[in-house]
Amino acid sequence: MMFNFKLEAEDGAARAGRFTTPHGELLTPIFAPVGTQATVKALTPSQVKLTGSSLLLANTYHLYLRPGAEIVQEMGGLHTFMGWNGPILTDSGGYQVFSLAERRKVDPDGVTFRSHIDGSEHRFTPESVVQIQEQLGADIIMAFDECPEPYDLNYNQDAMRRTHSWAERCVAAKTREDQALFGIIQGGIFSDLRQESARFIANLDLPGIAIGGLSVGESKEEMLGMIEVVEAELPKDRPRYLMGVGAPEDLVEAVYRGIDIFDCVLPTRMARNHTALTRKGRINIRKAAFKRDPSPLDPACPCYTCSQFSRAYIRHLCIAGEMLAATLLSIHNIFMLNALTADMRIAIHEGRLESLVSEFRAGFNRHRQEEDL
Amino acid sequence: MMFNFKLEAEDGAARAGRFTTPHGELLTPIFAPVGTQATVKALTPSQVKLTGSSLLLANTYHLYLRPGAEIVQEMGGLHTFMGWNGPILTDSGGYQVFSLAERRKVDPDGVTFRSHIDGSEHRFTPESVVQIQEQLGADIIMAFDECPEPYDLNYNQDAMRRTHSWAERCVAAKTREDQALFGIIQGGIFSDLRQESARFIANLDLPGIAIGGLSVGESKEEMLGMIEVVEAELPKDRPRYLMGVGAPEDLVEAVYRGIDIFDCVLPTRMARNHTALTRKGRINIRKAAFKRDPSPLDPACPCYTCSQFSRAYIRHLCIAGEMLAATLLSIHNIFMLNALTADMRIAIHEGRLESLVSEFRAGFNRHRQEEDL
Repeated sequence: MMFNFKLEAEDGAARAGRFTTPHGELLTPIFAPVGTQATVKALTPSQVKLTGSSLLLANTYHLYLRPGAEIVQEMGGLHTFMGWNGPILTDSGGYQVFSLAERRKVDPDGVTFRSHIDGSEHRFTPESVVQIQEQLGADIIMAFDECPEPYDLNYNQDAMRRTHSWAERCVAAKTREDQALFGIIQGGIFSDLRQESARFIANLDLPGIAIGGLSVGESKEEMLGMIEVVEAELPKDRPRYLMGVGAPEDLVEAVYRGIDIFDCVLPTRMARNHTALTRKGRINIRKAAFKRDPSPLDPACPCYTCSQFSRAYIRHLCIAGEMLAATLLSIHNIFMLNALTADMRIAIHEGRLESLVSEFRAGFNRHRQEEDL
Repeated sequence: MMFNFKLEAEDGAARAGRFTTPHGELLTPIFAPVGTQATVKALTPSQVKLTGSSLLLANTYHLYLRPGAEIVQEMGGLHTFMGWNGPILTDSGGYQVFSLAERRKVDPDGVTFRSHIDGSEHRFTPESVVQIQEQLGADIIMAFDECPEPYDLNYNQDAMRRTHSWAERCVAAKTREDQALFGIIQGGIFSDLRQESARFIANLDLPGIAIGGLSVGESKEEMLGMIEVVEAELPKDRPRYLMGVGAPEDLVEAVYRGIDIFDCVLPTRMARNHTALTRKGRINIRKAAFKRDPSPLDPACPCYTCSQFSRAYIRHLCIAGEMLAATLLSIHNIFMLNALTADMRIAIHEGRLESLVSEFRAGFNRHRQEEDL
């Protein structure tokens, strides 16, 4: 079997595991940086490795439009194309297509949409999305889902049912043995829908289960509540992937509630906005206070950026509009999330996640009170 | 003595040497990439090292304005500030200030100018420029010079005399023993002025001699002619630095005529314009022809970029507007120039530069005939 999830330790609802893929093992909990267009923005694959990342996410919607899935396939698939020989996950394009708002039209069979690049018309169906992901060649591929606004009950009911029927069609369409298809749970902020969706997706008996439609506008409490509802329904022997979540405080709370895999553009987007993530909160490095500050972004961090460069230098790069600012901040931000999940993993193995979480919450909240982040 | 130039081999007018600085040895001929604002654009210092660079140039004008020389000094000097522990050269700001055109006013004592950033008024004198460069702390610093348009005889006469008097004042103003001050020859495209300037600057008995005011609009023939005129006047026991020149074909012709040191923004600027340098000419990587091209930028190149990525991938990054394109192309372009100067160095040692130059010219010209570069 090419894919295998071994649950190594549990600590409360939290889990430490090991997920085997054709391109290597993933130690969970794990954070995956996002390489939307087959590149983690501003970083070479060597630099991504230095951040401690093992899993990358790439976006099916973007790569389908540009350069085109058949070109990626012709160039040897995503791993060869982007020079990343570790595990890769592609999303289904569902989230992107539904974000196009007035530029897309849903029917029971699929979605017709206009490209954000040139306005050209395209169509995604569960079958076509599986085919595109098979051409891209990631290790983990995602079922086509509909990701609605979280608060509309009727719409969430319809979207969930479409998502379920599409998941079945994705299972049927899949042909490659060297890719693991994960199903996606939807249901907005409605506990009964989430419960129903979790049961349905779990019954498909796929190698992994994702929770979609969270961190899309609902409150933190609602998000964590939905994770708890879903978690109670899920089999323990499959990895659980919370899509699109990556703020340090959300990672901690979600791992605590039994999530294994995360992805998010947050660390790289924050980097391009000149913001550093720390366990105590966010630092806007453009602040005048850092003009003559010889200390690293985060004195507690051993990453390449923090071991080599001062806040004064990184601030200078930001003010001067230098690309290196985004590179150095991306390295730090991704490293920071990877170090955090690695620490949680060890804490789970050692049965002391509870105290790690308490400590994190205390540091994070104290900092928020001390200064405007 | 902290600085020492050892002439190791000669081959015609060409030379192979070794210049010792407080931060390491420079094997000449050598190309220095430009880190205008204390960063080689789009590259970390580790990536710059991977290109085979040993010497970096940083711009006094830019760093004086932003972040300010006193801040760089307070942060431990340029080496610490930018995380580069090899040799660094700062220019004098002369070229930048004179490029400001209507925003600067020259008098015998110095130049008053307005910042390109915020229009604020500033003044450079030979003394202030030496002081700023002492605050920045590079290994090699440059005398303050006036760089005029190359074709105006009267202006070039005046500018040359100011440049000579300013060079003497720079020598007098200098206080640090761990910095080598290089003088700059001016004189436009006028042989008698260039001769006079070369003699004057050589007589100052400085550890290195630069040729300024070339590659600023004159023809290639005029540039090479001026190098020959100057070369005949220069002592052999000092390194000769041709400022602002870095096209592969210019490097070859200038090394052949006795130049030891080069700097240029060309490889990094070309990279940001999605152009790859090769020994046969330039490649615009955005061309549709590269859409499905699995070969590296330059099949003859062993750099990180060429060993890891296809033209199809780099083209995709360019078209998709990804920063990584500039990074990968910069790595290749700088590596390519360093490999070229290293090859010339070996050829000089082995007494076969003539044949290397002939071969280079043939390949370069053949390619120019074959396709529109």
